[in-house]
Amino acid sequence: MAKRVTGPEIEKLIQLLAKVPGLGPRSARRAALHLVKKKEQLLGPLAEAMGEAHRKVRLCSCCGNVDTIDPCTVCTDERRDQSVIIVVEDVADLWALERAGAMNAAYHVLGGTLSPLDGIGPDDLNIKNLVDRVARGGVRELIIAVNATVEGQTTAHYITDQLEGMEVKITRLAHGVPVGGELDYLDEGTLTAALRARTTI
Amino acid sequence: MAKRVTGPEIEKLIQLLAKVPGLGPRSARRAALHLVKKKEQLLGPLAEAMGEAHRKVRLCSCCGNVDTIDPCTVCTDERRDQSVIIVVEDVADLWALERAGAMNAAYHVLGGTLSPLDGIGPDDLNIKNLVDRVARGGVRELIIAVNATVEGQTTAHYITDQLEGMEVKITRLAHGVPVGGELDYLDEGTLTAALRARTTI
Repeated sequence: MAKRVTGPEIEKLIQLLAKVPGLGPRSARRAALHLVKKKEQLLGPLAEAMGEAHRKVRLCSCCGNVDTIDPCTVCTDERRDQSVIIVVEDVADLWALERAGAMNAAYHVLGGTLSPLDGIGPDDLNIKNLVDRVARGGVRELIIAVNATVEGQTTAHYITDQLEGMEVKITRLAHGVPVGGELDYLDEGTLTAALRARTTI
Repeated sequence: MAKRVTGPEIEKLIQLLAKVPGLGPRSARRAALHLVKKKEQLLGPLAEAMGEAHRKVRLCSCCGNVDTIDPCTVCTDERRDQSVIIVVEDVADLWALERAGAMNAAYHVLGGTLSPLDGIGPDDLNIKNLVDRVARGGVRELIIAVNATVEGQTTAHYITDQLEGMEVKITRLAHGVPVGGELDYLDEGTLTAALRARTTI
């Protein structure tokens, strides 16, 4: 804007909102205006919720999940089978798997994948904690649910190597045709994997 | 989510973020996770900016603009020609016209348009204030820049009626082909208006 038409506080709110993923400079302005109009119903509560999250949020020292308590809601959930650990790259993956609701297990968030080109080595990830967790015993199975990328698979191999000799079953997610997917649009690698892992009807 | 995987504070943050225009339930979750990861750089400052806006924001008692001071930045700007008032429906329209930067005028925000079907009458809009503002004198021109909808035009007519007999020139935005627009995609009304208002090259 050439000239200022509103106070610096609102300009600053727009600038910060534009950094939220999903919002750009234009939609940040629209969002700010909406928030200001819904001052009592939305802006106030949101400001408070953000302040609360800012003060309380922390990473779980056991699994790396994001929560306001440590150990987190998942690690302290006694109804979960804590002897099965699903290893994921990111908290978003943990949430995605929980939405599927297929397993009643514990988790371990790596916080990324090994990527020598980006300078990310084993010490930058939450791997040592995972090895210690398995070494302490009581873990029956480790399901490595990293992305099916080169970095993901490298990380899976590295973790398997680190756990060599320990009493734990290590599994990975199945490759295959996505449910609802059309063969025509799938790549050769996926089709080959789906054929190899075919099951009897 | 079937079972809780994170603290209630973060769940609440996600719920509130989903109400921000431009974000849905899914992107709100992604946004919340990003905010939590950028705790110090983004979540903290945004919480503070929202709190600040919540405490300070108000509508300008003169023109209806959103600001933290009253009268607002636009009304108190001495470099603007305060004798020309652009009448808009919404603060968003004020901001859009300022981005164009074509005029150096004052504004008046109606806060909507007359819409009997929705039960919005003249008393629900910021019209009386506008009439008073013109009646106090010093206003040379009123540019009615409402949307080119039936409600917008009805509102424009109503305002013109209310100002009958006052010493003020009332104008409206030109209708025509949008700059960069293709004739093929335009409706008949716009094309007719553009032909009628044709200018010599």
